[in-house]
Amino acid sequence: MTPSVPFATIEWLGDWRGCARIIDQTRLPGELVYIDIQSATEMCAAIRKLAVRGAPALGVAGGFGVVLGLRDAQSPDPSALLESLDRVARQVASARPTAVNLSWGVERVAAAVRRSAPLSVDGLIEGALAEAKSILEEDRAMCAAMGRIGGALVHEGGRFLTHCNAGALATGGMGTALSVFFSAHREGRKFRVFADETRPLLQGARLTAWELFHAGIDVTLITDSMAGHVMKSIGIDRIFVGADRIARNGDTANKIGTYSVAVLAKEHGVPFWVVAPSSTFDLRLQSGAEIEIEERDPSEVTEGFGSRTAPAGVKVFNPAFDVTPAPLIAGIVTERGLISPVSETEIRRVLAG
Amino acid sequence: MTPSVPFATIEWLGDWRGCARIIDQTRLPGELVYIDIQSATEMCAAIRKLAVRGAPALGVAGGFGVVLGLRDAQSPDPSALLESLDRVARQVASARPTAVNLSWGVERVAAAVRRSAPLSVDGLIEGALAEAKSILEEDRAMCAAMGRIGGALVHEGGRFLTHCNAGALATGGMGTALSVFFSAHREGRKFRVFADETRPLLQGARLTAWELFHAGIDVTLITDSMAGHVMKSIGIDRIFVGADRIARNGDTANKIGTYSVAVLAKEHGVPFWVVAPSSTFDLRLQSGAEIEIEERDPSEVTEGFGSRTAPAGVKVFNPAFDVTPAPLIAGIVTERGLISPVSETEIRRVLAG
Repeated sequence: MTPSVPFATIEWLGDWRGCARIIDQTRLPGELVYIDIQSATEMCAAIRKLAVRGAPALGVAGGFGVVLGLRDAQSPDPSALLESLDRVARQVASARPTAVNLSWGVERVAAAVRRSAPLSVDGLIEGALAEAKSILEEDRAMCAAMGRIGGALVHEGGRFLTHCNAGALATGGMGTALSVFFSAHREGRKFRVFADETRPLLQGARLTAWELFHAGIDVTLITDSMAGHVMKSIGIDRIFVGADRIARNGDTANKIGTYSVAVLAKEHGVPFWVVAPSSTFDLRLQSGAEIEIEERDPSEVTEGFGSRTAPAGVKVFNPAFDVTPAPLIAGIVTERGLISPVSETEIRRVLAG
Repeated sequence: MTPSVPFATIEWLGDWRGCARIIDQTRLPGELVYIDIQSATEMCAAIRKLAVRGAPALGVAGGFGVVLGLRDAQSPDPSALLESLDRVARQVASARPTAVNLSWGVERVAAAVRRSAPLSVDGLIEGALAEAKSILEEDRAMCAAMGRIGGALVHEGGRFLTHCNAGALATGGMGTALSVFFSAHREGRKFRVFADETRPLLQGARLTAWELFHAGIDVTLITDSMAGHVMKSIGIDRIFVGADRIARNGDTANKIGTYSVAVLAKEHGVPFWVVAPSSTFDLRLQSGAEIEIEERDPSEVTEGFGSRTAPAGVKVFNPAFDVTPAPLIAGIVTERGLISPVSETEIRRVLAG
């Protein structure tokens, strides 16, 4: 099968004696450089410097990190290996302590090792690798399902817009929001995508534009301030964005600026779609009002381009996310199907199915 | 009288033997550095490197440039001076051939010299300086009038938002859109201003934030993508922006991103105001549809501030302006009064008065 994206964000090469290979995302968009990672220490360094990032990709990185750590330990026998397991798990998870998916991936592989039948050292490491590879395969399958389901909304000759990066670079597969484009592109349809650069961290310019351009998709980069003018003067048929968290009424937290795009979409009658796996829903949350918005360092705004662009000492407001209310969302693409219209009933129905 | 802004973008020091003093805007927002300009050649260099910019300020710079050029000529008698006048005028106007206000300022001073009674060389240069100073005084008076009229809309404890830089740095006085803040501040009112950074060229971060911060006004810098979230989560009472051109139905061309702000304002019920002198109206234009939108170099988006932020070769759309339709505009502040509601009838009535 032709791959949908012409690069792999994270994969494993060879058997358990092999290595993990990742794209060094700190070199993007300038160069496409892969790093072959041979030890848990190297994996931790790559995670720490954000060479690999994005929640789903970090789950895979955590799993591979445990495999590498167990191999590093050179345990003389299975019980010595099992004794080193907790230390290895702590080491890998501590590379980014706040990344929930990283520790989830680490724990999943560690638990698989713990519940293994008594095996040889090699056998235990092989088992760990099999579990880590399952995380990757499940991630790929989930992205592919969203791409298949949402790709149907990407028609020949259409014009689309996306904000931030919910792409292949954040996952082991072909991404969340961007999966719909990769999927339609593989099916041979031609269409245009406008990518908001997404200040302050420019994920749209650095990552989304890179991914789509590299895949041969017709992408045009714009600043966030141009989205309204593009909808009015060129025309956009549909908008696709990712999500960080979705409340049970459908209110969606995503990268700052998403809400503005949704309001502009409403003004221009453009359907606004969210693409996110079922794991993004937090059904304990009644609405978006319960989602706390993290504020990030002012320097992201004032020194975002490597040089100071604002007067020293000026006050800055730098929220990382905003919340788009459900009534502005035409539908949500999940790996379990389309949720449209967006309501608690529909969300529960699709997630249950 | 206390100055409304604690700096002068352009002024003249002393009598005709003195010099023009400008703020070197290429050093902002890092440092406040003044340049004393002693010759037409120096003035041309300052205009060329954008040390002084903004339509009204360039009109004043053009006038002072002619004074300096006539002095440089060291003419032995009045007729020699008059012979050098055309050359001097051409020299100064050619520093930025597309800047309409620059050549307008140059021509106004040159015409004043031509129609002078036969005078001494010193007398002719004095007359030129008097005319150039009138341009500055009229500009100051126009800004002050807009500030007085629009400042009434800036209430104690209010929260306001602006986009781009329609400030004192673009004029000889206290600016257009920002004049309303300087005026209210001088009257002792306390309020907050949110300044959009205004990609791609960051006039909001570099100039507006600097001006307001420097004047002691409570300013908070945000990225353009945050304006919607700020309106929703913090609340904005009124928006003020400048204008590049206004059609006779009130459709307003201004810096790219202005239209998005206007749509967000409508969604949140925030009155959206334009502040612009009567010279901004182009009554030959029936509507904004007749305004051509200039596209600028892609590198402004991909290499904004010294480093490349997007993949090489990626397509970019970089319109310099957008058009905000009149129905989104609550009112227009001009030096001749408020236009509200915005309609051709009201525009003609206020401009005539």
